[in-house]
Amino acid sequence: MEKIRYISNRGVRHELSDQIFGRICESNSNAADHIITTIKDESNCMDFQFNRHTTSTNNILDYYSGGKLHMPADICPQKFSEELDCWGLPETALDTCCFTKYVSYFDNLNILKVLEEGECKRNTMFEIVATLAGGNGWRSVQARVWSVMEYPTSSVLAKVYLYASNAIVLLSLFLLVSSTHPLFRRKLTKDEWFDYFTTEEEEMYDDYWNETLNDTGIKLPSHVYVEIGALWYLKMITLAYFTTELICKLIVFPLPWREFITILNFIDVLALVVMYTTLIVNQVNPKEQYKDSVHDAVHSLQIFRVFRLFRLVRHITGFRILMYALRASIGDLLVMLLGLCTAVLLFSSLAYHSQDSAFSNIPDAAWWAIITLTTVGYGDIYPTTIQGRLIASMCALVGVCLFALLIPVLVNNYHLFSSHYAGIERRQNLKIQLLTRKTAVSPK
Amino acid sequence: MEKIRYISNRGVRHELSDQIFGRICESNSNAADHIITTIKDESNCMDFQFNRHTTSTNNILDYYSGGKLHMPADICPQKFSEELDCWGLPETALDTCCFTKYVSYFDNLNILKVLEEGECKRNTMFEIVATLAGGNGWRSVQARVWSVMEYPTSSVLAKVYLYASNAIVLLSLFLLVSSTHPLFRRKLTKDEWFDYFTTEEEEMYDDYWNETLNDTGIKLPSHVYVEIGALWYLKMITLAYFTTELICKLIVFPLPWREFITILNFIDVLALVVMYTTLIVNQVNPKEQYKDSVHDAVHSLQIFRVFRLFRLVRHITGFRILMYALRASIGDLLVMLLGLCTAVLLFSSLAYHSQDSAFSNIPDAAWWAIITLTTVGYGDIYPTTIQGRLIASMCALVGVCLFALLIPVLVNNYHLFSSHYAGIERRQNLKIQLLTRKTAVSPK
Amino acid sequence: MEKIRYISNRGVRHELSDQIFGRICESNSNAADHIITTIKDESNCMDFQFNRHTTSTNNILDYYSGGKLHMPADICPQKFSEELDCWGLPETALDTCCFTKYVSYFDNLNILKVLEEGECKRNTMFEIVATLAGGNGWRSVQARVWSVMEYPTSSVLAKVYLYASNAIVLLSLFLLVSSTHPLFRRKLTKDEWFDYFTTEEEEMYDDYWNETLNDTGIKLPSHVYVEIGALWYLKMITLAYFTTELICKLIVFPLPWREFITILNFIDVLALVVMYTTLIVNQVNPKEQYKDSVHDAVHSLQIFRVFRLFRLVRHITGFRILMYALRASIGDLLVMLLGLCTAVLLFSSLAYHSQDSAFSNIPDAAWWAIITLTTVGYGDIYPTTIQGRLIASMCALVGVCLFALLIPVLVNNYHLFSSHYAGIERRQNLKIQLLTRKTAVSPK
Amino acid sequence: MEKIRYISNRGVRHELSDQIFGRICESNSNAADHIITTIKDESNCMDFQFNRHTTSTNNILDYYSGGKLHMPADICPQKFSEELDCWGLPETALDTCCFTKYVSYFDNLNILKVLEEGECKRNTMFEIVATLAGGNGWRSVQARVWSVMEYPTSSVLAKVYLYASNAIVLLSLFLLVSSTHPLFRRKLTKDEWFDYFTTEEEEMYDDYWNETLNDTGIKLPSHVYVEIGALWYLKMITLAYFTTELICKLIVFPLPWREFITILNFIDVLALVVMYTTLIVNQVNPKEQYKDSVHDAVHSLQIFRVFRLFRLVRHITGFRILMYALRASIGDLLVMLLGLCTAVLLFSSLAYHSQDSAFSNIPDAAWWAIITLTTVGYGDIYPTTIQGRLIASMCALVGVCLFALLIPVLVNNYHLFSSHYAGIERRQNLKIQLLTRKTAVSPK
Repeated sequence: MEKIRYISNRGVRHELSDQIFGRICESNSNAADHIITTIKDESNCMDFQFNRHTTSTNNILDYYSGGKLHMPADICPQKFSEELDCWGLPETALDTCCFTKYVSYFDNLNILKVLEEGECKRNTMFEIVATLAGGNGWRSVQARVWSVMEYPTSSVLAKVYLYASNAIVLLSLFLLVSSTHPLFRRKLTKDEWFDYFTTEEEEMYDDYWNETLNDTGIKLPSHVYVEIGALWYLKMITLAYFTTELICKLIVFPLPWREFITILNFIDVLALVVMYTTLIVNQVNPKEQYKDSVHDAVHSLQIFRVFRLFRLVRHITGFRILMYALRASIGDLLVMLLGLCTAVLLFSSLAYHSQDSAFSNIPDAAWWAIITLTTVGYGDIYPTTIQGRLIASMCALVGVCLFALLIPVLVNNYHLFSSHYAGIERRQNLKIQLLTRKTAVSPK
Repeated sequence: MEKIRYISNRGVRHELSDQIFGRICESNSNAADHIITTIKDESNCMDFQFNRHTTSTNNILDYYSGGKLHMPADICPQKFSEELDCWGLPETALDTCCFTKYVSYFDNLNILKVLEEGECKRNTMFEIVATLAGGNGWRSVQARVWSVMEYPTSSVLAKVYLYASNAIVLLSLFLLVSSTHPLFRRKLTKDEWFDYFTTEEEEMYDDYWNETLNDTGIKLPSHVYVEIGALWYLKMITLAYFTTELICKLIVFPLPWREFITILNFIDVLALVVMYTTLIVNQVNPKEQYKDSVHDAVHSLQIFRVFRLFRLVRHITGFRILMYALRASIGDLLVMLLGLCTAVLLFSSLAYHSQDSAFSNIPDAAWWAIITLTTVGYGDIYPTTIQGRLIASMCALVGVCLFALLIPVLVNNYHLFSSHYAGIERRQNLKIQLLTRKTAVSPK
Repeated sequence: MEKIRYISNRGVRHELSDQIFGRICESNSNAADHIITTIKDESNCMDFQFNRHTTSTNNILDYYSGGKLHMPADICPQKFSEELDCWGLPETALDTCCFTKYVSYFDNLNILKVLEEGECKRNTMFEIVATLAGGNGWRSVQARVWSVMEYPTSSVLAKVYLYASNAIVLLSLFLLVSSTHPLFRRKLTKDEWFDYFTTEEEEMYDDYWNETLNDTGIKLPSHVYVEIGALWYLKMITLAYFTTELICKLIVFPLPWREFITILNFIDVLALVVMYTTLIVNQVNPKEQYKDSVHDAVHSLQIFRVFRLFRLVRHITGFRILMYALRASIGDLLVMLLGLCTAVLLFSSLAYHSQDSAFSNIPDAAWWAIITLTTVGYGDIYPTTIQGRLIASMCALVGVCLFALLIPVLVNNYHLFSSHYAGIERRQNLKIQLLTRKTAVSPK
Repeated sequence: MEKIRYISNRGVRHELSDQIFGRICESNSNAADHIITTIKDESNCMDFQFNRHTTSTNNILDYYSGGKLHMPADICPQKFSEELDCWGLPETALDTCCFTKYVSYFDNLNILKVLEEGECKRNTMFEIVATLAGGNGWRSVQARVWSVMEYPTSSVLAKVYLYASNAIVLLSLFLLVSSTHPLFRRKLTKDEWFDYFTTEEEEMYDDYWNETLNDTGIKLPSHVYVEIGALWYLKMITLAYFTTELICKLIVFPLPWREFITILNFIDVLALVVMYTTLIVNQVNPKEQYKDSVHDAVHSLQIFRVFRLFRLVRHITGFRILMYALRASIGDLLVMLLGLCTAVLLFSSLAYHSQDSAFSNIPDAAWWAIITLTTVGYGDIYPTTIQGRLIASMCALVGVCLFALLIPVLVNNYHLFSSHYAGIERRQNLKIQLLTRKTAVSPK
């Protein structure tokens, strides 16, 4: 007769026939050894007390009895993974439906690591600076100034500095934008014109001044206009501020220099270099600044000044989450871009070969395809023949579907990070509260 | 030998070694005291009867045995929080995966408070008025009239009043809209023209009349046309109605005056002031109303009359939920706006520096960037060079992604409010039903 | 000393102090009577065997012990509602978080009733017809023909009829569409022209023929062109088919006449009436058909013929679900429309008063606002001033957010219906399978 | 007196009255026989030990006691289905709410079969090739070359080959695109012109050369321009590569020939045929290549070369998932297309009959309707009358709603496949790891 053993787990009693017991022994694993040894040792007792998770144990013993292995819904996959380890079962023993859930849970945990590590590094650096600031000597002064400049939550002064510094950045951005608008530009004066231009350009000069005096509104090349004086003075102020700030930062930086090389600092330095280059070029050879070639080269560099706006948003939680989410979704974004490229290439070729006069060559058709796929639809290029319109309709439909299909993946990551971040923040705040409470209690 | 205690919780038996018991005692908290004392007191018994939530107790005792703390799936975070309190565990003891769920549950409860408080205030005020109306004297008359004017669900008369009042508001909006359309405007008559204009404008007058008689269709400045008489009479009717209504409201307002200062009442008063101002300006100095400067100033004020339409929608549930959801998502909306601003600034600068002739200055390029990011794509400005088109393509892509990423946060809040509101409404209706049933039963 | 009772429910033992027992007795309800009586009757026994849902009973007894009432996650709200009834507890006893879930579950059930009832009626009618078809005499002939015409799943012949009938409907739609295209139209012949027109129109006639002979391409009023002969003959064929079909339907209709009045039959009749009217008008007074007034009136009626396309889609499951979902979401759609109207009115007023020359009157601005809010952006109207562009930007943003906020409600209903429909279909198929198996088994 | 039996299932004790036992016996099924026999045989014992899933057994016994059958939330529908089989209950016994969940679970499993089967076939073929490669002789050489050409994960050489091959494909696509752009085209030389054209075309020749010399920029037919020489040489290189590759593939193909007929191979062959056709046509009759008719025919064939880009994306996981998801959603896509067609037909008819001059015939109006429904809005056709604008507004609204309603179905499938694929990949990787570990261990 078969020997029947019983396992009692938190009030639930399981029959364990020889056959099933054999299967448990076969799962050749160190983790399961503990269970098997216990059962074998006390084999005269026939009834074992267990103390493991109820529904998991039920499901695992059902699996040994010949069924399929499912994960109970009332347990975190992480805890279930511990249960599996204990019984020496591989995770692939799980049935397809539950395995999908199990894997996507751990995938999500992996994705969240990016966020955890980033925030952890931030917090660690803040704590190092805070510790240094609590010390004595030059290092402590450095750390105190640095926390004013970098950590707006550390003190009231830091908050004030943040607002002042952001105001200057906003001013610098306003200067960049407004200096291109007619409202903030003036024509060259007669003297400037006369001083800087060569005699060969004399005729141009004559035409120019006659036209201006008559206010005929003929369009002149944009570099003939220069920004008004007020803007120039404001620009000098921002230049002075950014230079001072960078020097201060270099003096008081309390951490290993390796940490100084961040993207934000790089942008700061670059924007300053651009401003000084413009200034020097204009001073060294004033005549040249009105020449097209030099003007264009110097002009294009100004674009680096706009990246300063990332300084404004770095302390906003929503942006940090967005950045982490984007970094984690880089793979999905590339697939989306590739999908878009495929669609663009396909539809632009189709459109060009449809012999619709709207599409004169494939690169033009590609531009039209992108604008149609994103449903922007400027209307600068549009088909007029039946075959062209059929292709355009398909293009618009594919665009709507393509974005609808691929965006939820991004959204999913953002959601994940957003809700997880709330947890991290709560934990951090509780930690700080406990620390302050302890400090308040200890003097007693 | 180690002393083993047992805890029996609703049929589930747990081993409690000295080590684990020690850990429970260490969790130094008032709440856990009760459990510890019980166990210590009856330490000769070794087997304790508990009566707490089954899976929570399992998980918590597993945690004390050295595992991680997970929240069971079959319990509300709120109830689990009570279990944690009882065992003296802090919420941070929860493992990351469950902590995220736990925190987001309480975050949602916090968000819903806005809705609960708003609806609670509304219901309280309605009950105060209803109580007043049940009394005697002038106050009761006030309350009765007030509930007719403000609470359409209170009586049939109130419903009729609501529809009548909404009809007048609709008429007033129709007048505002139609008075700008050529169909409802006429040219000045010869007399009006002759009366109001100065001699210097005589020539203009001649030109005007000759043109009109010939029906040449030359475009005249818009203020030369005035609204037709019928509209004027209808406007006077709405003016009379709104004036009467406001006076009535002021007379019968039964609540403390502080409650009168609501946005809707402010709009009512403002719209009336605008109407009277226009009327008075036109009467005092009729000639001036055809002059550009005065006309424009008075004309721009009319915009306040359009806000009356909020009176139409205030009793619609969907709108109230939308308003609460918007108020709760103000932070997320700001992040979205900031994200948009960043993208606009970045792309407008890039576009301007791409030296595409379509972008003549950054403010113009910013307008183009907004219209491209939202995928509206008017087509008034569009790039024609390769670099310009590349930037525009990126801009369109970023727009699609940006809105796809940030909108779900808003949607989430709306969903939350929408489903929660159904619960509040059901509860309120059952309350009213019970009250009416009681009233019906009590006379027996 | 307090008397302690015990309740054992499926192996879980609960303490029941006098105080708690008193609370249960207070919940004055017929349903709870059974429990109370049982306990009171056997009060000498002190230990009662129960056989109810485990976690629900736990939660309800916890509630009586002074806690809050939560719904266990492992139970359907419907079953929990039975448990509440049994204990005599009102649903409002539930804590907020669970009450929201509870209410939205029953709300969903209510929404699904529309689908259940519609499909139920469909199936009932099919079964009545099938029963009639199984009988004898004229009624059975009627029912058989009717099931061929209406129930394509009933037989192969019915399927063939469906495809043939759909082909004719498609032809009729093709005729409607193509008859407006230049490719399928010809100019009036000289005779037709000469016959039909009055002498006053003689000059027009001369101009017309001179122009045509010279092929100058001057645009003529559209009614001067008539559809080519082939189309006319095909139209007569569809007319004959639809007339025959309607007569057949009227003869064989086997159900009470009340059931005949459906929207699809109404469209059929209307489209036929329109076709005959056109035919008669053209025959009675051939000259008039080229006159603008008569032509336009008759022409506009043709629109009713397009509704025939609903005949094509009525047997497609996806469409039926969509229709049910739309009917259930009519309230949400109205709120969405109202929201759109509010936004349109607000932005059109703001745009008009921004004194941007693009917005000449409010109705025009309203058209612009709709096209911007839906992000279509034709580009026929667009602002050029700064204030106008700011308003347009806000408008585009609000549009994106508005639709993002309100559409998920629709989507939710569609999802609900779609997944629920799968269940209904499966059940219906199993029912039919069982019926056929029974019929196959019974002869033995 | 009624005989009461008891069933004990893992510590949960159920009363089983005669009535309930009768109902279990009635469920006439082989599966339930086992249970019934057990109970009947030991009918003198009255207490049976069971060992089945706890909550399922509870719910099923509740159902026999007269309640409704619900599925517990803590169990996979698949496992619950086994429980139902064991008790001999049909799945339709489930209450509506749970039945929907139950059916949609199995529907999802069915949808996922497409993915499982596709990936399974891929893996099987890879294993066959790997096995062959491990053998000896010509077959093994074939298999080794084939795995280099087809399975980039199999070796480093295969990866290098993939990149090289992709570079050539990219080059070929670049040639296709660039050959249409003015930058890469030149005018015919005087000799080419003179050689190829007949005397009748002499005048055209004169005009052409006079124009060109004067650089008047008059637009010439596109075929007068030919691609520059460099492009022609590069094209020859790609032609040589693709020809060699195809021959290699044909020589080394180690599997049954039936497997060779894939879409990708078909595209390869077709693109080669197109290239050779063009080459031969141009060589055989050089003069003809500048004639419109021949040019157009040959030109249109080039479109097949663009499909080569699918070779680039076939090894990217995201694309494969997308393809499977699209194949599984073909039904939903058709419903969406049909819905779009319905909307287009409806709105184009309405727009045409609104007598707005923008819509000159229904096919044109249909083009406008598609572009409005997808919210692209080129702005080439837009209404100007009030009735036309109302219809356009409705059209835009319906478009936004239609896509919002039907896209989530697609998204759902993509999500399903995406998360399921992660599971399949993990399982495959673990399998390979185990295999390599075994191989590493076995030599000992």
